Amino acid sequence: MVGGGQLARMTHQAAIALGRGLRIVAERPDDPAAQVSPDVVLGKADDLEALRRAVRGAVALTFDHEQVPQEVLRALEAEDVAVHPPSAALRFAQDKLAMRERLAELGAPAPCFWRVVDPVECPWPDGGLVLKTASGGYDGRGVWFPQTKDEAQEIVAQLLEAGQDVLAEEKVAAKRELSALVARSPLGQVAAWPVVETVQESGICVTVIAPAQDLPGELAAQAQELAIQLATDLGVVGVLAVELFETADGRILVNELAMRPHNSGHWTMDGSTTSQFEQHLRAVLDYPLGDPSPIAEVTVMANIIGGVAASGMSMDERVHHLMARFPRVKVHLYGKAPRPGRKIGHVNLVGASSDLQEIRAEAERAARWLSSGEGLSE
Amino acid sequence: MVGGGQLARMTHQAAIALGRGLRIVAERPDDPAAQVSPDVVLGKADDLEALRRAVRGAVALTFDHEQVPQEVLRALEAEDVAVHPPSAALRFAQDKLAMRERLAELGAPAPCFWRVVDPVECPWPDGGLVLKTASGGYDGRGVWFPQTKDEAQEIVAQLLEAGQDVLAEEKVAAKRELSALVARSPLGQVAAWPVVETVQESGICVTVIAPAQDLPGELAAQAQELAIQLATDLGVVGVLAVELFETADGRILVNELAMRPHNSGHWTMDGSTTSQFEQHLRAVLDYPLGDPSPIAEVTVMANIIGGVAASGMSMDERVHHLMARFPRVKVHLYGKAPRPGRKIGHVNLVGASSDLQEIRAEAERAARWLSSGEGLSE
Repeated sequence: MVGGGQLARMTHQAAIALGRGLRIVAERPDDPAAQVSPDVVLGKADDLEALRRAVRGAVALTFDHEQVPQEVLRALEAEDVAVHPPSAALRFAQDKLAMRERLAELGAPAPCFWRVVDPVECPWPDGGLVLKTASGGYDGRGVWFPQTKDEAQEIVAQLLEAGQDVLAEEKVAAKRELSALVARSPLGQVAAWPVVETVQESGICVTVIAPAQDLPGELAAQAQELAIQLATDLGVVGVLAVELFETADGRILVNELAMRPHNSGHWTMDGSTTSQFEQHLRAVLDYPLGDPSPIAEVTVMANIIGGVAASGMSMDERVHHLMARFPRVKVHLYGKAPRPGRKIGHVNLVGASSDLQEIRAEAERAARWLSSGEGLSE
Repeated sequence: MVGGGQLARMTHQAAIALGRGLRIVAERPDDPAAQVSPDVVLGKADDLEALRRAVRGAVALTFDHEQVPQEVLRALEAEDVAVHPPSAALRFAQDKLAMRERLAELGAPAPCFWRVVDPVECPWPDGGLVLKTASGGYDGRGVWFPQTKDEAQEIVAQLLEAGQDVLAEEKVAAKRELSALVARSPLGQVAAWPVVETVQESGICVTVIAPAQDLPGELAAQAQELAIQLATDLGVVGVLAVELFETADGRILVNELAMRPHNSGHWTMDGSTTSQFEQHLRAVLDYPLGDPSPIAEVTVMANIIGGVAASGMSMDERVHHLMARFPRVKVHLYGKAPRPGRKIGHVNLVGASSDLQEIRAEAERAARWLSSGEGLSE
C-alpha cells in the first residue's frame, strides 16, 4: 500500500485478521502506518524505484492516497504489477477535470463545470462559483469560494500562473452532503454500504451519520446505484467513495471521487459487519467481498481534529478521562502529532436511531474533548 | 507483552486503535505477533535480561502466556516494573496446586483435590480421577484421565519421577463447561462479559457460544460474581478467565484460571462493544474499562485447528471459497503453520438467538473448512 497514513494504518489492522501481510510505502519511519507495521519500504509516492522494491513478492499494489503519478503507475502496469485500482481508473480520482469530463460522458448527475484556461473566460453563474485545482487538493485545500466574478478571475489568474489546471463548478445550493461508498473486486463483484451523511466544517469532514437520516429510499437507492455504476464503468478495484450533494429539490450531484478507504467509511470499523479496510483488502486480493450490512440502527463517526490544546493535558490523560466518561465510545487514534486542522483520529458510537441526537452529541463531544481537552461535560 | 503468540498479535490490533505501542517479547521473528509488529524484542520468557531490555521505556509489562518464572517476575517487580498481572496473582495461573489451595481458602466452589506426593497415596474417588501437572499444561496437555486406580498410580509415579508436582482432582460429571471472563484495573475497577459456554474436543476448546444458552440467571450471576471476586481477591490486573464446570445438579465449580486474553473471549472481537484485547490493554494501561456488553443476541466463535489437509488447497484458496460461501463470517488468522491440533485461527459469527443452531453450524463449518479444506457445503 503506497502511503503511510491512517488509512494504511487501519488497513494493516484488517490485514492482520486475514493473515495477510501489508507492506507499506511510507515517506517517514514515524508515519502512522509505519509506526505499527514491520514491513515498511521508505520512499516517496513518485519514486518508481521505491515502488519497484515494494512490489517485489507482493500480489498487488494499492494506495492510501492519490499521489502516485500516472506515468509511474503505467510503468508498473507495463511490468505486470497488479495495480488496484488501475491507473486508468485512478486517473479520475487524481484529476478533477478528467473526472468531470468522464462523468459527463457517462451521464452521471453533476454540477455544471468549466475548464478555465483564461481568466477573462471565467464564467459567473447565478449561484456563484467554486474554483478548484484539477489535482492535489484534499480536506478543503485546493478549493476556493470567490465572492465576486472579479475575485474569481484573480484566483484563476494566480492558479494558471502557478501552472495549475483550473476547474470551475457552479456552486451547488446543497441541503447536505452524502457519501455513497462501495467496493468492487477485479472480477466485478460490488458491495455497497448504506449511504451516509457527511457533515463538513471549513471543508473538513467532521461528522458522519450512518445511514443518512430522512433520506428518501428512492434517492438512497439512486445514490448506491450511481456508485456501483461508476465503480463498474471506471473499472475501480477496491473501495470507491462517491461524495454527493443532496439538493433542496431532491436531486443528488457528484462532488468528488476517492478510490481508497475514505473518511466517510470510518464508521464501518465499528458499525458494519465488514469494515471498509477489510473490504478494500478483499477487493485488492481478489477475495469475495464481505457483508456490508450495518450492525446497529445508527453509527456516528466524529473526527478528532488537531487543535490548540486548551489544557496542558496529554493525549493519554484525555483518553483516560474520555473512557471514564463514555465507556461505549470506540476510539481510533492515528499516532499523529496534533497539528491544528489535522485529522489525528476518530471515534465511533453505535446505537438505536431513536437515540441519534444523544449518540451524535456524545460522539462529537468525545471527539472535541480529544481534539482540545475541552467540552467533555455538557 | 511477553509472548509472541496469537494473543499478542490480536492485542497489537487493539493497541493500534488506542494509539499506543505494544512491544512484543517473542522467541522467533516469525511468531504470530512478531510477524505484524515493528517493535519486537527477541528472547525467551525466562530470560531476565531480555525482559529488562523489553521494559526499557515501557509503562507496564503483561503476558500472552503463563511462562515467565516467578523469580524473574519478582526481580522485575523489585526494579519497579509495573508487572500486570503481578507475580503474586499470576502465580495462581501458573501453579494449579497453589490455585486449588488458594481457592479453597477463599471458599470458591471447586472439585475435591489432592496434592499427591506418593503413588500409593493416590486417591480414587467414586466418579474417578483427573491427574494434572501443577504447571505447564494447556490445550489438553498436562492432563490425564486414568481409567483405574492402578493406572492412576502408574501415571503419578511417572510424573513424580519426572520431577513434576502432581494434582489429583475428582472427575466432575459436568453437564457442560462455561467461562466467566472479567477484566480488572490496578485501581480495582472490574467489568464482566456475559458467561459463555465453551465446547471442548480432546481437551481443546473448539466452539464458544456467547452468552451460554439456557443458563439460569442466578447461576450466570453467581459465575460473574465469582470471577469478579477472584479477580479482586487475587489482585489480578488485566483479563481473568475463570473456566467452570456446570454440574447436572445446577452448581458451578472452578476448573482453571487464566490471567490474560483467553480463547473463551475471542468472540468479543466481533460480538462485544469492547474486545478482550482492548480491555486487557485498558486495564494494563490503567485506563477506565470499556463497556463489555454484547452487540448481538448471540455470537458463536469456532476455532480453526490445524489438520491434515484433505485437499491440496492453500489456506489462501480456502479463505477465498469461505468468503464466497459465508460473507458474514469474520475470519481471524494467526499466521501459523497448520500443524495438527494447533490453533491457527478462529471465526466469529453474530446473529439472533432464534437462529443459534444455524449460526453455530455455519461457524463450525467455516472453521472446519479452513482447518481441513473439507465440509464447506452441507
